[in-house]
Amino acid sequence: MPINKIVLIGAGRVATQIGKVFQKHGKNISQIYSRTPESAKDLAVMLGALPINDLTKIDHNADLYIISVSDDSIAGIATHLYLPGKIVVHTSGSVDMTAIQSISEKCGVFYPLNIFSKSHETDFSTTPVCIEAQDKETEDELTELARTISGDVRLISSQQRAVIHLAAVFACNFTNFMMVNADDILQRAGIDFDILLPLITETIAKLRGTSPALAQTGPALRNDFNVIRKHIEMLNHDPGKQLMYELISKQINDYFTTK
Amino acid sequence: MPINKIVLIGAGRVATQIGKVFQKHGKNISQIYSRTPESAKDLAVMLGALPINDLTKIDHNADLYIISVSDDSIAGIATHLYLPGKIVVHTSGSVDMTAIQSISEKCGVFYPLNIFSKSHETDFSTTPVCIEAQDKETEDELTELARTISGDVRLISSQQRAVIHLAAVFACNFTNFMMVNADDILQRAGIDFDILLPLITETIAKLRGTSPALAQTGPALRNDFNVIRKHIEMLNHDPGKQLMYELISKQINDYFTTK
Repeated sequence: MPINKIVLIGAGRVATQIGKVFQKHGKNISQIYSRTPESAKDLAVMLGALPINDLTKIDHNADLYIISVSDDSIAGIATHLYLPGKIVVHTSGSVDMTAIQSISEKCGVFYPLNIFSKSHETDFSTTPVCIEAQDKETEDELTELARTISGDVRLISSQQRAVIHLAAVFACNFTNFMMVNADDILQRAGIDFDILLPLITETIAKLRGTSPALAQTGPALRNDFNVIRKHIEMLNHDPGKQLMYELISKQINDYFTTK
Repeated sequence: MPINKIVLIGAGRVATQIGKVFQKHGKNISQIYSRTPESAKDLAVMLGALPINDLTKIDHNADLYIISVSDDSIAGIATHLYLPGKIVVHTSGSVDMTAIQSISEKCGVFYPLNIFSKSHETDFSTTPVCIEAQDKETEDELTELARTISGDVRLISSQQRAVIHLAAVFACNFTNFMMVNADDILQRAGIDFDILLPLITETIAKLRGTSPALAQTGPALRNDFNVIRKHIEMLNHDPGKQLMYELISKQINDYFTTK
């Protein structure tokens, strides 16, 4: 029997977008739990669900329980929930599936790999959804459910998921911080960040056809000491940026000299 | 009188794309110079120009001379060219305009800020073109010319251009290297890099509406020591990646703690 009635545990960014997309695809979001009554209420109103802020009031007759809270709070939730025979998943990139196995033998993971915000609607159709489950039947049910919202559903173990999460820190968080630095450097000279947008867009567009290693360019790759020295001097006012410039340049050079 | 007849000095990636876009907009590319006869010939055939590999054979009756060679070669070209009264520009992000002032008193810079390849056609209409010139008349002529190919023409001094180039190293070269690392990490676990593309696309899309600092997320920002420690352990096989992970995480944390 396909999954229809869903309880959401959590009312943050991921929970909000997951709730919205499942509702849009005809699922019944019956309850929203949050420690913060206001958060539960806001999302519940949006999804026509019942807000709760006490885990003992949880509906035991749903088809699926989605725990979408901060990584650190998952273990705490697990100690307060017992739903034998029910499918229970978390949505975290870095927490092992075993963290929720005390809740139900039919536990699993439903990890959508994208950026989420409360206000901006996520395009789930292109968002990879990583599925893991304790047993084959649960795996099949979760896969079928994921396919109703995404065209990219993958079976991914806890170990692989941790690797993906680490890679995403480089590709997303560290990349964004490179932009923070670029923005700082430009602002000091009174230049707007938007001058870099075409270049950045093209840098990322290239990744769809070329491996990142083949797309590498720049003074560090060329071993252009004159430019590197000049750039490090220009960062004299900011030792943190100097350290990063030096280390990343050295790593680029080592990487492509060794390969 | 608008610029019509152009001599290209250089036949690399930038020269190729500049030559193609000006030809498309009705300009006459009369000669292509390259040290390498084959390179000059390949581009000359494409643009209906005369290939030369001897600077003494340069046509003295063109309206504009574009020096588009590697940064290190600009000074050498300058010692072999003397074109008084002619508009002469280079296309480099990091070389001062004064590097070519011995060629002509009407010297300048025509720096298109994008990624260039010989084969992939650059969209110049959205590419910022940074203009600098020794005198107002030359500046006006270069600006008028740049506006025929780009909707984003800016007057940028040599000093500002150096800043933009440094910012571009962070936003483009270092960003690409973050992707190289992400790709490596995934490959070791047998996972294809394409799983990250929707996340990366969204990371970059956010920059059009939010400042990079407001868009920052991740374990380093949250000061999530458990995840950071686990990630550093996972990189035990690769001390270079460990160093980068540690330094960038520390910089993220310092940056957002101080602000």
